[in-house]
Amino acid sequence: MQKPSLPKGTRDFGPVQMARRTYILDTIKETFQLFGYQQIETPSMENLSTLTGKYGDEGDQLLYKILNSGDFIKDVKADDLEKGSGAILSKVSEKGLRYDLTVPFARYVVMNRNELTFPFKRYQIQPVWRADRPQKGRYREFYQCDADVVGTDSLVCEAEIILMIRRVFEKLNLRDYSIKLNNRKILTGIAEAIGEAGNEGPLCVAIDKLDKIGWEKVKEELTQRGFSEASIEKLAPLVSLENDLVGKVEFLKGFLNSSEIGLKGVEELEEVFEILLKMGVDLAYVDFDIMLARGLSYYTGAIFEVKVNGVSIGSVSGGGRYDNLTGVFGLPGVSGVGFSFGVDRLYDVLDELGIFPTESHTSTRLLLTYFDQAGFGYALSLLNQFRNAGIKTEIYPNQVKIQKQFDFANKKEIPFVGVCGDEEINSATISVKNMVTGEQLKMNLAEAIAVVS
Amino acid sequence: MQKPSLPKGTRDFGPVQMARRTYILDTIKETFQLFGYQQIETPSMENLSTLTGKYGDEGDQLLYKILNSGDFIKDVKADDLEKGSGAILSKVSEKGLRYDLTVPFARYVVMNRNELTFPFKRYQIQPVWRADRPQKGRYREFYQCDADVVGTDSLVCEAEIILMIRRVFEKLNLRDYSIKLNNRKILTGIAEAIGEAGNEGPLCVAIDKLDKIGWEKVKEELTQRGFSEASIEKLAPLVSLENDLVGKVEFLKGFLNSSEIGLKGVEELEEVFEILLKMGVDLAYVDFDIMLARGLSYYTGAIFEVKVNGVSIGSVSGGGRYDNLTGVFGLPGVSGVGFSFGVDRLYDVLDELGIFPTESHTSTRLLLTYFDQAGFGYALSLLNQFRNAGIKTEIYPNQVKIQKQFDFANKKEIPFVGVCGDEEINSATISVKNMVTGEQLKMNLAEAIAVVS
Repeated sequence: MQKPSLPKGTRDFGPVQMARRTYILDTIKETFQLFGYQQIETPSMENLSTLTGKYGDEGDQLLYKILNSGDFIKDVKADDLEKGSGAILSKVSEKGLRYDLTVPFARYVVMNRNELTFPFKRYQIQPVWRADRPQKGRYREFYQCDADVVGTDSLVCEAEIILMIRRVFEKLNLRDYSIKLNNRKILTGIAEAIGEAGNEGPLCVAIDKLDKIGWEKVKEELTQRGFSEASIEKLAPLVSLENDLVGKVEFLKGFLNSSEIGLKGVEELEEVFEILLKMGVDLAYVDFDIMLARGLSYYTGAIFEVKVNGVSIGSVSGGGRYDNLTGVFGLPGVSGVGFSFGVDRLYDVLDELGIFPTESHTSTRLLLTYFDQAGFGYALSLLNQFRNAGIKTEIYPNQVKIQKQFDFANKKEIPFVGVCGDEEINSATISVKNMVTGEQLKMNLAEAIAVVS
Repeated sequence: MQKPSLPKGTRDFGPVQMARRTYILDTIKETFQLFGYQQIETPSMENLSTLTGKYGDEGDQLLYKILNSGDFIKDVKADDLEKGSGAILSKVSEKGLRYDLTVPFARYVVMNRNELTFPFKRYQIQPVWRADRPQKGRYREFYQCDADVVGTDSLVCEAEIILMIRRVFEKLNLRDYSIKLNNRKILTGIAEAIGEAGNEGPLCVAIDKLDKIGWEKVKEELTQRGFSEASIEKLAPLVSLENDLVGKVEFLKGFLNSSEIGLKGVEELEEVFEILLKMGVDLAYVDFDIMLARGLSYYTGAIFEVKVNGVSIGSVSGGGRYDNLTGVFGLPGVSGVGFSFGVDRLYDVLDELGIFPTESHTSTRLLLTYFDQAGFGYALSLLNQFRNAGIKTEIYPNQVKIQKQFDFANKKEIPFVGVCGDEEINSATISVKNMVTGEQLKMNLAEAIAVVS
């Protein structure tokens, strides 16, 4: 008899984990909806032609490919074997599993461009798969949770993303965090201003590591990437710039005065702040981080990253503005801005801080228990009255000793137990025990509903 | 430039479809939770050793297999090619995609048997994949929605399944349907009573087609399967039995008086009815259908099937009791009962009947519009006040002609539009237009919140 196991890097989510994940996801969904975002879902499988070449060579390696159905090997000849897996792949597989939610979204927008109402705000919460080496906190199947608005360049969208992040964190009782904000145009301007015009790509890649490896190592990397000593020296004051938001803006206006695009980036940033102020919102939690780069090359405007302070996991959310989401599928000029929440990371953060709600909204409130057949019948007669009052209620299904029924309630962390004995039957009452305080009181049905609700 | 497409048999779900699917699934989830069921999720990928051999030869063919990562072809030799796909499969693939939710659930129970609290009530709503030929209403990726309780043989579970189905249908405004109920033991008893003891397998398979092909064709099939003419003749009165519930029970007690297991089946059925009556529930919608067989061979007790009347799609839910869920994974004796809702089918039924709610709970209620920069700033100042009152609100992000903003509201079916012009700014009001009635009224913020809520 085989002993079953899970594929490496995958997980089951049991009842407790699911209740907590649902708590996080419901909070996020509710917020997205409040801001007018609409949910879509795309298939788990995409044609390999849709996926391949979108994530770099390494990404192509990490794509899960699905074996063609039926006689999958029929087109493979003996001499193909010598050419290796790369040459054989297209003969045995034409579909792959979703690697992220961005490429499927781009495909969706292109295929539905005539039906969609632009600006189109969508959110999408689905698993993605990557054949990566599993390690702590990295899985081969994990959920992504993306929101994007496409078809507008309005900076209202950036301001609203900040508001959505703040709302989600407030609802999750996360209070110590910062929303790091920068603009890719500023980084382009900095490259110009330090005499490395056009080199913002390698500049961003190096700067992206500042938090992890420190300024000295970043300097080494920049030197290796061909940045002159003079350029690197010009960069230094930005790295060590300690100032408030207004101070940073003023500094940059001077620093970038020779770079048109750099000044445009500062201007966009200021407009986002202005929109927030017009909305009656202060700039709490917002941290203008000139050194925030984010690796992805397709960002062209604002970039975001959210870090929770005082926990081992850092970044739990991020995103940015792009101006060519769908060009690769033949529809140029679709600009937009998007961001995503790392659901697994948020889970770990709430767990580490111990701030998951103690009571789940999805689990049983009341277990009805009984001593004998008469009590069983009486409990059955009450059962649906509790449910009709909206109370999540169970009856222990088999007639066993009452202690076993109480054990069941304890293990399932059911907060109330209703006892149905002869006394309760005769007085048309029920004894309700609060499993947290231990208090037990006899009461009628209406009172019991009020107590348990 | 490539034109993107979807893999055959897969679908995107756009905002309207998602809102409707969410409506159905939220109704089902809420009901499961009210009855104490807890959600779990299992990985999309399972080891092929977990999946293979569980769904028959045809099922094994329909499993989606995932190509091993890296140099997947390295173990395949030239002479393997001659042996064909079957021999090569195990060398190039060790994982497959979930084919249903039952086998993963059985695996989950076995792997977590020491942590779970039994009786364990779980529900699970996830996509499954089958490499079937796509046709109308049949997809290669579709959602299943299962609820099972394992570790108890109490017939309270059967009664509660009937209640859950009734509650879901009531909430979805489905009124014309029947919950067909039978018991596998009765079918075993019938086989005994007509002199075909032990042949309930082929009997069930043939009877299962009664609805589709009629009694004459079923008779032919039974003859082909080796049933004697005398047996088939004895079966005839059951097929044409028109009687109420009590009448059918009485008839069967006579018909099955020589079959111990048959009488046990009738007894179980009567107990389910008795439990329902003790719960204060009538037997409305319940139809004791002696000819309900359901093909799956692992059912051993009650079997269910729910049909909506007056629509082209028939069965939308079904299930039954089994007494050996996990034996194949080395854990014998785990009995339980489960059922599932066909989400795609329920969708099509509600669509065909035109009974989806006209207003979605997930989409935008109010769009704020404006004529110029001043109005834009004013609208921004109101925006979050609406949201803080719980109203799903959007602002048109770019300054365009107001007609275009109204067009946007119409296309997104947003029921209210707030107009922010000079008059409104000067009087600290907003003009709210009801997009359904066409009525437009100027009011202050508190009034607007009340109207739109």
